[in-house]
Order: sequence, then structure tokens, then C-alpha cells
Amino acid sequence: MYINKKQYRTIWPDPRCKYVEAIDQTKLPFSFDIVRIHSLEMMINAIRTMQVRGAPLIGASAAYGMALAMLEDDSDANLILAADKLIQSRPTAVNLSWAVNRMVDNLKTIEPERRTFNAWKQAAHIAEEDVKQNQSIGQHGLSLIKKAYKGEAFNILTHCNAGWLATVDYGTALSPIYAAHDAGLNVHVWVGETRPRNQGASLTAWELAQHGVPHTVITDNAGGHLMHEGLVDMAIVGADRVTANGDVCNKIGTYLKALAAYDNNIPFDAAVPSPTIDFKLNSGAQIKIEERHSDEVAYIQGQASDGSVQTLRVMPHDSKAANPAFDVTPARLVTAIITEAGVFDPAQLHANLLSTTMLS
Amino acid sequence: MYINKKQYRTIWPDPRCKYVEAIDQTKLPFSFDIVRIHSLEMMINAIRTMQVRGAPLIGASAAYGMALAMLEDDSDANLILAADKLIQSRPTAVNLSWAVNRMVDNLKTIEPERRTFNAWKQAAHIAEEDVKQNQSIGQHGLSLIKKAYKGEAFNILTHCNAGWLATVDYGTALSPIYAAHDAGLNVHVWVGETRPRNQGASLTAWELAQHGVPHTVITDNAGGHLMHEGLVDMAIVGADRVTANGDVCNKIGTYLKALAAYDNNIPFDAAVPSPTIDFKLNSGAQIKIEERHSDEVAYIQGQASDGSVQTLRVMPHDSKAANPAFDVTPARLVTAIITEAGVFDPAQLHANLLSTTMLS
Repeated sequence: MYINKKQYRTIWPDPRCKYVEAIDQTKLPFSFDIVRIHSLEMMINAIRTMQVRGAPLIGASAAYGMALAMLEDDSDANLILAADKLIQSRPTAVNLSWAVNRMVDNLKTIEPERRTFNAWKQAAHIAEEDVKQNQSIGQHGLSLIKKAYKGEAFNILTHCNAGWLATVDYGTALSPIYAAHDAGLNVHVWVGETRPRNQGASLTAWELAQHGVPHTVITDNAGGHLMHEGLVDMAIVGADRVTANGDVCNKIGTYLKALAAYDNNIPFDAAVPSPTIDFKLNSGAQIKIEERHSDEVAYIQGQASDGSVQTLRVMPHDSKAANPAFDVTPARLVTAIITEAGVFDPAQLHANLLSTTMLS
Repeated sequence: MYINKKQYRTIWPDPRCKYVEAIDQTKLPFSFDIVRIHSLEMMINAIRTMQVRGAPLIGASAAYGMALAMLEDDSDANLILAADKLIQSRPTAVNLSWAVNRMVDNLKTIEPERRTFNAWKQAAHIAEEDVKQNQSIGQHGLSLIKKAYKGEAFNILTHCNAGWLATVDYGTALSPIYAAHDAGLNVHVWVGETRPRNQGASLTAWELAQHGVPHTVITDNAGGHLMHEGLVDMAIVGADRVTANGDVCNKIGTYLKALAAYDNNIPFDAAVPSPTIDFKLNSGAQIKIEERHSDEVAYIQGQASDGSVQTLRVMPHDSKAANPAFDVTPARLVTAIITEAGVFDPAQLHANLLSTTMLS
């Protein structure tokens, strides 16, 4: 997508395959910095400190991490060691272990001296796959928007950041929005700030601004009111996991927006690449919700008047905070699941998605 | 209520009627300061800068402002001038003009030389009325809690600050909670932080902590998830206005919590003094929702590590923000309206409340 009128991905290899470059997401939205990653250790650090974040992007980053590891030492021993180290860098990230294991399965069948070349090729392939998948989500989502579009400003509400910054390019929930904007449709996005980590106000607003998509930041509290006032035509969110029955596990607060969409007869869609759908789980009740550190609620980061990034405490020292990171939106509140293989009724997800040739 | 084991009200007159003292709410929760107000101008400034805030407290403050004005100049001309100045200090505050007009109506019938004495007496009476009303709301709410109480921890979710800091004492939504805590019931409060101005995280958490009521701060996003997990037994909020049909206009985000309470079969109650019920409006659709300055969304205040209170920008400079300040929760989602005159079904509000002798 575009940053200051120049096209970027979130991560890309040096053409001579000596290093990887990535947008340093810890500096956004107040500073656009590119970090150059020369070694496996630097990649592990980039993942751990969230210079790169978002499940699909973490997967691609880990794949490039394996390529950097092979550049340093292409032995069998290092293949296993590097994979272990990468997987430990963010243990709960499913895409990370998926990408690393895919790299290992491929590279272990290849002689060491040809591993480095193949590792870079395979990492680029994983990144490219993500781009294609998201692009396809965008096209399927665009057809939904086109059906509802009446030529006037079309208002889409989103939550958190399921944008291109969370992927290699295009994003998931934002991919249909970029597709609609690029196709000349008059779309405007309500960006929920998404406390506690404010990925909406910081990352989603920033990437939409860079690409030139009209948008307005709102507090998480405001979404219901806007829907009731007729100011929202569609809600599109991403998901961390979708279960076989169509329940959507996503960033905390998603459930509240889905309730409001349902109450006001507004389509509420989740846009996800098909690997996010976990057919091993029958319902969202089986997902254990991660409780993250209470400091994420108690403190907030932002830019001071001198331009520096600072952290403030926003609640009394005598009070404690709870921080459930995700919630489950029941399938009955979800209008459609938008995947790279098509658009599905959540109640019919299992039958339809498993029958598509793309996913067979 | 208690602050550091000492009993306080939010505002109180000097025993010799020379000045008024109030808790400086702009300094909370990080510093407990008392501001001494010697003149009408100082009171206008205190109201305007929100050193005193919350509809009932603004009313009492304005009444004391009239007393300070009479101390300075008890002429007819100053009676009118002072009233005008006070009403202009926060033009949308209904309680303010109500209290000021009540003072004027009383004082204009009295000879100038006796006005000062009577003004202090009348202001104290207005403050005392607020205290009694809120205390009564607390007792009626307590009976609701007792009915549902099973001896285990009873979890109440609230939004924004409808606590004693918004009134002279006891609060509205928090009054039943204080009553339950003081009666020895094991209550715990989920405090929604209430972006954009964070009155939950700053004021509600602070006053509950000072009084010793167990509580946990959460993001506004988390309430629905907690309800779904069975961790909320009751929701109690305040209201800025309730219409004749039982619609509740309150701080933005209230509607989302009411939807979640309804979806999870949890009682959702609004606690309001009866003057907050506007029988001239048939429904919430007739209320124009105030759009406040976008800087409230774009910036956040908190405490830096050196103890100073600072302001940070939390979204990109290129993005704009919208800031609707209130929303309307339809009566169908409200279980009960708790008033000083009793507990009412919102659908039966008009018939029941008008028939009570207390309000006739």
C-alpha cells in the first residue's frame, strides 16, 4: 500500500538476500522508521518487541528469520536451533510456528549448501501467499460492498488493526476497504481506537491516512450510537480465530459492536484468511481468552508536545485493572465470513468452506 | 463519603459563611487538593474549569456561588448580574440554571440586607436536598441488590462517574453500591474507564478506592466479555436525562453495555434523582446528542513517571476524530429506573412516578 505516495510492504528482503527490511511498528504513528534486520537474533528481537506484529506478518517475518539463520549457518543443527528460538519468541502466535515448521519441513530435505538460496525463496513465497490471500479477501469483500453501495458515502466501522500493517500487504478487514477505495467508491471508515493498546487510533488510522482513505477516529464507546444514528452501513473486523460453528474470536470489544450492528440491522462481517478458521473447535466457548498484563490498561502511550513518545498512568495507583484481550462474538450476530475462497454464512461455514476446491 | 478514612463532601461552606471549599476534581486521581473559593468569580472559574463537575454538584456549587455574590453586593442589580454570569459559565448544565433560578426566586422576595444570610441558608438547603435524594436512591438500590445477593461476591458493572464526586454526597449510580458495601455485603465493582475523558478510571476508581469498595478498572471494550463469562451480576449507571417512555440518555457507551446486559440476561438499571426525568420528552429520539471537541479523543491526560500530570496525543496528526458525548439506551433494554421515590419499570415510569406522593 502507499506511504507518502510511495508503495511499500510491511517487510521485504534485500535484493541480494543479505538482510531484511521492515517498517518499525513500535514507532508508528508518530514516526515512520525502517528497521534493517541482519541476523536471526535481530529478527527474534523484532518479533518480541513488536517491531513486526499481526499474525500474518509474524509468520512471514519468522520465515525470513529462518533465511537469515541459514545465511549464518546452514547446518542441520542450526536449522533446528533457529526454529526453536523463533517459535519461543512469541509462543502463542500460531502463524509463527506454522511458518517456521513449513520452512523446516522444506529445508531439511535439501542439502545444507543449497539451503540458504532455498530459504530466501521459500520465505518470499510465504510472504507472497499472504499478499495473494489478502488481495482475494479484498475482492470478495468488495463485491459485498458493491451490492450495498448506493453511490453516496458508504460508512464502514472497523475495530483494532486488521490492516495491511498486520500482514505483508492489503490486510484482512481493511483489504475490502482498500479495494473499494481504489475502485473509486466513496468509502469512509469509522476507526474504533481499540483500548487498551489503541491499535485502531494508532495503526489503522495511520495506514488509512497514508493510503488516502477518508476516516474518522472514535472512542470504542461511540460505535453503538453511530449505528443507531444511521451513520454506519457495514462493520468489518478481522479475527484471531473463527470456530467451526462460525463464532468469531477477535480483539476485546468486537462482541459489543456486533450486538449494536445486530440491534440496528447493519451487516457485521469478519474478514479472515481460511487458515484462521479452526475446524477442530466446535464453538467459541472452547477458546481460552488470554488475560494480558494490567499495565496495558493502567498506562497509555502517546506523543508529548515536544514530539517525544511518552507513557502516562491513567488510573489511580490504589486501583487494580483487568485486561481480557479478546472476546467471542457468537455466529448468530455475524452476517458473513469473508475469506480468500469466498463469502460464507457463518452457520454454513463448515459445509461450504470445506467443499471449495481452493481449500480442498 | 470517606477519603483516607476522613469523612468529606464534595463541597462545603466555611462555618462563618465567608468562603466555600470544594475538592479540586481537576487534580484527581493523582492529587487530593481542596480549593478555597472566596468570590463569585472564583466559583464561576471553578465550574468552568471543572474543578467542580457532575450535574447535581454543579447545581449546589452555583447556589453557593449566589451566596458568595450576595456577600460581595446584596443589591437587586447584583442578584440578576450574578445569576446571569453563573448560568453562562456552563450553558448546557440544566441543574445549574435550575439552582440559580431557585436562589433568585427566593432572594428577590427578601430585603437586600437579609439576603446574604438567607442565600447561605438556601444554598445549604439545596446541597442537603441532594444528599438526601441520593441517600434514598442508595436505599432503594440496596433493596434490589439484596434481592439478587447470594452471599458470594456480587459484581456490579458501572460506566463513567455517577459517584459521590458528581454530587454533594453518596452519588447516584454508586449510592446503592456504597449502601451495600456499608451494609456489609460483599460487592465488587467493574469500573469501565469511559473514554474519552476517562471519568471511570480516574474518578470512579478513585472514590471507590478511598471508601474501600473492592473494584477493578476495565477498558470500555471489556464489559460485554465479562457479562458473557458470568462475571457481572448487575449493571448500574447514572443518566443525564431519562425521557417519559423510559429511554436513558447517558455517557457515550452506555447503550453498548445495555445491549450486552440484555443479551446475557443481566439486570441493567439507571439510578437517577427524579428531576432528571424529563416528562416533556416522549422519547430519547428527541434528545440532541452533544458533539464535543475532538481533542478529547485525540489527547489523553495522565501521570508521568515523575509524578507530574501530562497530556499526550494518541492518534496521528493527519487523522480527525469524532466525539459524540452521550447515547440513548432504549427503555426495552433497561430493567429498572432507581429514583429517590422508589424503583420503577421504565415502561411504567410515567404512570408510577407521577402518582407517588413524594413527587406530586
